[in-house]
Amino acid sequence: MEKLVVLGLGLIGGSLALDLKKRGQFKVFGFDKNPEHIKKSLELGVIDEEISFSEIADADVIIVSVPVNVVGKLVSKVLDIVSATTLVFDVGSVKNEICKEIANHPNRKNFVAAHPLAGTEFSGPEAAILNLFDEKVNIICEADKADWRILDRAISLFKMLNMHIKMMNPVEHDRHIAYVSHLSHVSSFMLGKTVLEIEKNEQAIFDMASTGFASTVRLAKSSANTWTPIFLENKENVIKSLDEYIKNLNEFKELIENNDAEALNESMNSTNYIKSILNGIKESN
Amino acid sequence: MEKLVVLGLGLIGGSLALDLKKRGQFKVFGFDKNPEHIKKSLELGVIDEEISFSEIADADVIIVSVPVNVVGKLVSKVLDIVSATTLVFDVGSVKNEICKEIANHPNRKNFVAAHPLAGTEFSGPEAAILNLFDEKVNIICEADKADWRILDRAISLFKMLNMHIKMMNPVEHDRHIAYVSHLSHVSSFMLGKTVLEIEKNEQAIFDMASTGFASTVRLAKSSANTWTPIFLENKENVIKSLDEYIKNLNEFKELIENNDAEALNESMNSTNYIKSILNGIKESN
Repeated sequence: MEKLVVLGLGLIGGSLALDLKKRGQFKVFGFDKNPEHIKKSLELGVIDEEISFSEIADADVIIVSVPVNVVGKLVSKVLDIVSATTLVFDVGSVKNEICKEIANHPNRKNFVAAHPLAGTEFSGPEAAILNLFDEKVNIICEADKADWRILDRAISLFKMLNMHIKMMNPVEHDRHIAYVSHLSHVSSFMLGKTVLEIEKNEQAIFDMASTGFASTVRLAKSSANTWTPIFLENKENVIKSLDEYIKNLNEFKELIENNDAEALNESMNSTNYIKSILNGIKESN
Repeated sequence: MEKLVVLGLGLIGGSLALDLKKRGQFKVFGFDKNPEHIKKSLELGVIDEEISFSEIADADVIIVSVPVNVVGKLVSKVLDIVSATTLVFDVGSVKNEICKEIANHPNRKNFVAAHPLAGTEFSGPEAAILNLFDEKVNIICEADKADWRILDRAISLFKMLNMHIKMMNPVEHDRHIAYVSHLSHVSSFMLGKTVLEIEKNEQAIFDMASTGFASTVRLAKSSANTWTPIFLENKENVIKSLDEYIKNLNEFKELIENNDAEALNESMNSTNYIKSILNGIKESN
């Protein structure tokens, strides 16, 4: 059995642990500064055993799945002690900062910067689910900075989970992901906030939450502890995407104010084009 | 068999036709100014027969399911000719305008102003599906303005579809629905527009459209012909909700600019409260 360590037993780390444990090839150890997460993970069979940080050096695989503002520091500490053959990878939603942080580490070659595009709006080890990564895309940044055997091991593991692999440079990654993931989260959080502020009468929300609200506001259930550092770490791109979004909202509002039915129709019609692009994408995550 | 007429064979009209036809109690006639809709509806078994407007007067039930900017005029024309016992109801997403428009019609008592809170992002008779209304809320406005037997007939029909019924005054309805439905649609359309504008590289959208984008942008696939008149007819409320939404987005952006992790966390944490309110709501519609 290979020794696999998961540092951070949240939704992503927990789901990786659960899924890889099932394969039978790994003994899965968990580390989390929150003792409740360890307890829950053991109870739910997400991990086989708890592990202390000093015991991880000889692991075959170490997964770093902690909030993006601490991932750089933790990966460095891990690289300080790991064996020459240990694969270390992270799963963070922002990639440029982490790549810069560990760029000059003597064991940089043991590290693969990864971002599995998968998740739900839930958090903690109790949110861990099987098959979360099935058929999802995993973005690998700066693949050429990893030792080829380390990278190959990472790819094998991702393929074991039936993921698609896409190589990307971290600057490009952060710019794209701001639009297609981070902006979605802000828009959803602020939609939830706006409706909560106005609709003091909660029963009305419950009654009227069909026709779209529930799905559009779904991401507003996401963990603030996960998303605060993501927005700050990808600050420049998130702000740029927000500026564009707010500009479009203001323009749309003006069209309504001016009763410009034709332009409203045209704006929505051309956006319908998103349909053909998203066609075939599973909406489950 | 009772004679049921559906004027306007789109997603809602078509789904009502399909579902009520299945019950065996109605012969379902369809009317639509688009001959393609009639053809498709007959092909798909959404209606039993086409009908001309001059033949509808003796119907037992007439459903008016056309865009909200024409519903008032059409309901008036229908009320001009219907028999004393005919139930006429609409399904529009804005209610105050229609209620005002037909307020003084001599046959006002034949009309029930309804808004079934159900739908998908698809449109036209080919989008018609069975069980769309199952367990959904149907809002009835100005129920007291309808003859009690007419209203009772409407309620029987809605209960046959397993809908919950909520009475509401039309001004309240339009104010609430702006926040929980119309705003969701604007936010989703503008999210789609923003991402389309920036991500010229469509392959990138496809690859990166997990973790939330697909569900948050789902409503941007909705029909521009349906939604343009809704936004214009509920103009005042939609603009107010948009102002609040844009204000919240700007405030959130400022928190990111100021690296105010604590306030960002607090904002998202308190919005997480939406979870407990939406708890138990099906996300399918």
